[in-house]
Amino acid sequence: MGGKVLITDNVATNRIVLKVKLAAACYLPLMAGDGASCLSLARGELPDLILLDWALPDVPGLEVLRHLRADPATRDIPVIMISASRDPAIRLQALAEGADDFLAKPLDDPVLMARLRSLLRLRDSSGEGAVRGAALRALGLAERAESFEGPGLIALVAARPETGLRWRKELQALMPDRIVLQTREEALAEAGPVPDIFVIDADLDGPGGGLRLMSDLRSRAGSRHAAVCIVRGQMGGEGAAMIYDLGANDLLPAAFDPREARLRLRNLLRRKRRGDEMRATLQNGLRLAVVDPLTGLYNRRYAGAHLAAVAERARAADERFAVMVIDLDRFKSVNDRWGHGAGDAVLVAVARRLHANLRPGDLIARIGGEEFLVALPDVPRPEDAHAVAERLREAVEEEPVPLPGGGSLRVTISVGLALSPDEAGRRAEPVDAVVQRADSALLLAKSAGRNQVTIERSAVA
Amino acid sequence: MGGKVLITDNVATNRIVLKVKLAAACYLPLMAGDGASCLSLARGELPDLILLDWALPDVPGLEVLRHLRADPATRDIPVIMISASRDPAIRLQALAEGADDFLAKPLDDPVLMARLRSLLRLRDSSGEGAVRGAALRALGLAERAESFEGPGLIALVAARPETGLRWRKELQALMPDRIVLQTREEALAEAGPVPDIFVIDADLDGPGGGLRLMSDLRSRAGSRHAAVCIVRGQMGGEGAAMIYDLGANDLLPAAFDPREARLRLRNLLRRKRRGDEMRATLQNGLRLAVVDPLTGLYNRRYAGAHLAAVAERARAADERFAVMVIDLDRFKSVNDRWGHGAGDAVLVAVARRLHANLRPGDLIARIGGEEFLVALPDVPRPEDAHAVAERLREAVEEEPVPLPGGGSLRVTISVGLALSPDEAGRRAEPVDAVVQRADSALLLAKSAGRNQVTIERSAVA
Repeated sequence: MGGKVLITDNVATNRIVLKVKLAAACYLPLMAGDGASCLSLARGELPDLILLDWALPDVPGLEVLRHLRADPATRDIPVIMISASRDPAIRLQALAEGADDFLAKPLDDPVLMARLRSLLRLRDSSGEGAVRGAALRALGLAERAESFEGPGLIALVAARPETGLRWRKELQALMPDRIVLQTREEALAEAGPVPDIFVIDADLDGPGGGLRLMSDLRSRAGSRHAAVCIVRGQMGGEGAAMIYDLGANDLLPAAFDPREARLRLRNLLRRKRRGDEMRATLQNGLRLAVVDPLTGLYNRRYAGAHLAAVAERARAADERFAVMVIDLDRFKSVNDRWGHGAGDAVLVAVARRLHANLRPGDLIARIGGEEFLVALPDVPRPEDAHAVAERLREAVEEEPVPLPGGGSLRVTISVGLALSPDEAGRRAEPVDAVVQRADSALLLAKSAGRNQVTIERSAVA
Repeated sequence: MGGKVLITDNVATNRIVLKVKLAAACYLPLMAGDGASCLSLARGELPDLILLDWALPDVPGLEVLRHLRADPATRDIPVIMISASRDPAIRLQALAEGADDFLAKPLDDPVLMARLRSLLRLRDSSGEGAVRGAALRALGLAERAESFEGPGLIALVAARPETGLRWRKELQALMPDRIVLQTREEALAEAGPVPDIFVIDADLDGPGGGLRLMSDLRSRAGSRHAAVCIVRGQMGGEGAAMIYDLGANDLLPAAFDPREARLRLRNLLRRKRRGDEMRATLQNGLRLAVVDPLTGLYNRRYAGAHLAAVAERARAADERFAVMVIDLDRFKSVNDRWGHGAGDAVLVAVARRLHANLRPGDLIARIGGEEFLVALPDVPRPEDAHAVAERLREAVEEEPVPLPGGGSLRVTISVGLALSPDEAGRRAEPVDAVVQRADSALLLAKSAGRNQVTIERSAVA
């Protein structure tokens, strides 16, 4: 099914006419005859979109809208306000309270349907479907604080320079955002920060040229998430539907009222930033899944996958790679004698020293409590890997680790090293076997007194 | 900048003409005059798209395509094959080797540009940008195995039933995939599995009606990632550009050659499934970030965020919520005496029992080695929370846990319980303070002999 659309209208026949149209378009219509039932359905059913009549029997539609926008559960549901009145003042009020659009009755069906599609598409493309509620918070808390704040960047791409200058003058007087004029080329060149919103003349460089620019921006990684508001030229209703379907987030008439434009752009900016936030959350979530929170190194899950890729590439390029398993010596006694705070400080310090002594292409991961894994992807000679391992060992031993409670502690590591192919020419072994060999070497290093590097035997035979 | 586009053509003037056009459209053009430099640039620069001439001085363009498709690094780069020849046989060969399209010289600029946009858009929308290489593998290994296998589901939406029947008959003879006929309503209704590909008559229910259906499918959560192939009616070149910009992944002429259609659909299916795989990987990655891998319960990170939401809701609705901190009694001795395998088995069993004795809306998370957190969102009376805690304690004690090596072990838990607001009416406290109180109660339960529930003192005063 398509989304749930909540129809709020106090006239039963209006509701039924809309219901039939929406059902025919394969949406799931819900119906409310007054503001109270609209709010209760909105909270209970979480519809994908709300059509809200201005005039309701119990409370004004505007008041309902205010409630919807104040409740975190319903705040992001797109709302189209509808009224038979043509009074521009009420249109401005609806937009000011966060309505995504305002349509006059009687409704133009193709435009209404295209508007529904465009708002439903926007809602989905933020990735919102992927992660909700507490999971969202868990993944994205770090990103939350500042993303909604501060003025936005709005680019005006007008067909004629004087038009752009007029737009900017009118809008800048009303908005705190940075407003710049751009040509088509400047918009595409992405020099400098990508605008949050592009306002584009539909008839840029000829009829419909602005729509091609919009499609172009949508196909580019940098600008594909920007909001686009098209300033319409000569087109009628059919044109509007097409513009929405081509990906416009909103439309303005050629002779727009700057106050209305300001409100529409502000609403677009809010949604655009909400989408940015969602995407940042997804990114953060993915990072969390492969990173050890204490040390910031990759975790065991990532190490396994990365190692498989290293082995595959080495085999394809006929190169040698090295694996080290590294263990902190007598770490248990650190925890027991100095507490977990000290233990954590030691782990973080050791992780930093190991990381600082590797090349960017090397892998370093924390694969257990006090165990690390290092992979060197291209090792011309076994001695090279041994030298790196020695360097790591020395880097840890060199200087005592300062403890959080004061004082410091000398720590050492044992390193088990394995090469693939080894001297014996074993090559086709699975990567797990290489790690296994490094692990055996580590045990030898431990039993030989710790604080040393041991190469797996067959490698130096 | 827009993407990097690699132009491969053995005629220098052709390269330069294309380069100028692409640069004017703000792409970054790279140029190769033969197959060897094409392959080396493709591997070194990883362009976003490749224009590949059929006739090259060193190796045939088809051979270059084969190499590109065989190398995991270049396998997913969109390739448009270009030739002055109108021989349908070479078009089929190019498509058979995995070319995304085949364009005849002289190139129609608006169509070429729209085709570039459509292929670049597709590449990006799979979420590929979000996660690469080893991270992708680390997050998505589980999904990999079967996603590329098995026949696909293709829906044909023709303007006239007899057309649809003919398409199906022609295609089904050539393809292993399941091919179904659908009306517009069936396509939108999403009854049953969503097709991988929709093949849609452009002139469904009147001129351009198929394009509206496409926009409609794109705006719906279920079908937005399906591939869409439009069968063109009367439109010329300008129409094709518009169809791409509206979101079509490929075009077929009204009287299409079934062999060509088969190849194009097969290529679409491959890309569609690659996108599915990417999205599954993202989902999996996000799940991994909030779930404890051993028990499958939520982790500490998630618990904190969820708890904050519970507290917020309880405050808004003027309800009481309860927090329990649960600790496995003498767990260290289980590990020490029976090994880590036994310890893990105990953790998993206890997690299951706790989970089975809670309601769906309750939170249960593993927040430490042997420590769990439970939150009950709506607790009318303190006794209710106490009863739940007792039930959990009994569920763990009731039956010994079978151990992996045979035999079984009786385990018990201690539970610290805190309510907010407590009897003393403390309400505005931060949620951390509630957990702190539950933690104190847990310590009391431990020191009072374990295997018991203790309510934080002020709550029962």
